[in-house]
Amino acid sequence: MTNHDSFDDYLIAPDPGRAGLTRAVEGVDHEGNRAAISVVEERPLTIYLNSQEIVTAMTIGDYPEYLALGFLKNQGMLREGEAVIAVQYDDEIETVVVRTDSQTTYEEKLKKKTRTSGCAVGTVFGDMMEGLEGLTLPPAEVRTSWLYALAHKINRTPSLYLEAGAIHGTVLCEEDRPLVYMEDVGRHNAVDKIAGWMLSEGVSPKGKILYTTGRLTSEMVIKTALMGIPVLASRSGFTAWGVEIARQVGLTLIGRMRGQRFVCLAGEERLVRDIDPKSVPEEDRKSRRKGAPDA
Amino acid sequence: MTNHDSFDDYLIAPDPGRAGLTRAVEGVDHEGNRAAISVVEERPLTIYLNSQEIVTAMTIGDYPEYLALGFLKNQGMLREGEAVIAVQYDDEIETVVVRTDSQTTYEEKLKKKTRTSGCAVGTVFGDMMEGLEGLTLPPAEVRTSWLYALAHKINRTPSLYLEAGAIHGTVLCEEDRPLVYMEDVGRHNAVDKIAGWMLSEGVSPKGKILYTTGRLTSEMVIKTALMGIPVLASRSGFTAWGVEIARQVGLTLIGRMRGQRFVCLAGEERLVRDIDPKSVPEEDRKSRRKGAPDA
Repeated sequence: MTNHDSFDDYLIAPDPGRAGLTRAVEGVDHEGNRAAISVVEERPLTIYLNSQEIVTAMTIGDYPEYLALGFLKNQGMLREGEAVIAVQYDDEIETVVVRTDSQTTYEEKLKKKTRTSGCAVGTVFGDMMEGLEGLTLPPAEVRTSWLYALAHKINRTPSLYLEAGAIHGTVLCEEDRPLVYMEDVGRHNAVDKIAGWMLSEGVSPKGKILYTTGRLTSEMVIKTALMGIPVLASRSGFTAWGVEIARQVGLTLIGRMRGQRFVCLAGEERLVRDIDPKSVPEEDRKSRRKGAPDA
Repeated sequence: MTNHDSFDDYLIAPDPGRAGLTRAVEGVDHEGNRAAISVVEERPLTIYLNSQEIVTAMTIGDYPEYLALGFLKNQGMLREGEAVIAVQYDDEIETVVVRTDSQTTYEEKLKKKTRTSGCAVGTVFGDMMEGLEGLTLPPAEVRTSWLYALAHKINRTPSLYLEAGAIHGTVLCEEDRPLVYMEDVGRHNAVDKIAGWMLSEGVSPKGKILYTTGRLTSEMVIKTALMGIPVLASRSGFTAWGVEIARQVGLTLIGRMRGQRFVCLAGEERLVRDIDPKSVPEEDRKSRRKGAPDA
């Protein structure tokens, strides 16, 4: 860990100053004074696969193409080797259309899904579990010094969270380097954007670590496993089913990362303890995330 | 505010010791020691309206009947005056069937919804906005002393959050009294359980205040407004669209409640400032929620 913060390793970092992601909203504070605070945007984005409307996601609105691609990929709606021939975003009508070369098959598959699953809150769950059968994540090494370095860098990276709060972050990392840091107001949009970026750029999940600010629920674990990433780490806590699925697919699951502390509830064989936790400084107030558990 | 904590006002309080809501899971900590930590459960619950499968929600599993009723109500799938003739929970196959007296109409309505909205992540959004047209929430008084007393009591109430973390809470309140405190791992399940309880018990939203640990997103604001509750308060932050909708329907929206501080971004005319914020103690470490923003 260096004394000065360097954010040079990022391929994509948050851009909290970008127009359209936050808005100044006026109100009153506890003392009755007028207060203008910075608030994140939240807008609908409707995702189509060819001619079929799939979902309307609530999003801050950046990287709509990655969000659409990653959502479809993580839902198992784009098969291995399936060629995406176009991704068309229209900001006026807030839609993204993902076009593939085998239109008819997928439309039929999707119609079936819609009928069997109804309108799923959170995800089309039955279908996501399907992709996990027989999945085993490859061996990998996770040095504890990397985990501490990642948490330190990520918590200090200028972000919409630090600017306006009320937002989730997910970061694709390699060793001690955060590479792609996506944020979104929607529950799993941040991780879907990363999946979309990986698909677009042809990036391998090998040796990658996924870091999230959110809880380690079954859905986060499933998405990470389907992306082929062997390690998922978070400041936040676990659910029992998330742990169970992680153990089933052999994913390393690390939670409650605060300062020198963390807990590993699955896949601990990947951990390489190359640093004395006592040498890791406690978090300073500035980098500590302020928020309560969040909807 | 009293010096001792009294939780006598609750009609329903969290029951963190209840079997089946948490599980001890073994892992290792940062120092390589074996550690068993308490982790919340998360299981699927499939909700049917008559013979139609509607959704599979991820839930901790308590109050499945309230969750099903409240979900259907908050999605606009149970109309005003619609008679619910039975709510049947089967814990073996993890389903709840809500039966109404006008089966045919609703099945058709639902089929249409499923087809037009596809599988919605989060919610069937278009349909929820519909119910807001022409809605104006009634006048009400919100004393700031109530807000401080509620935050103080709720933060100290024994809960699954304090026991195991990684969970959301929503509390139905009246004046300075928390009445029904629901928790759930699922995004909006806690508020749906409260809606289901209100529907079951015939409780009026008049004079009620809803407190949530989660963010004040459009979806939380819409659900609160559809429940007819004029005030929504949170420790957490806002989204711009949540604020916009609150202003449109005349809902009082209070966020970032920490110790003596809060921000009101909509409906401030209901606020009655009957206490000097300086007289309100800062939060002690014990009652401060530890979590980061959460998925």
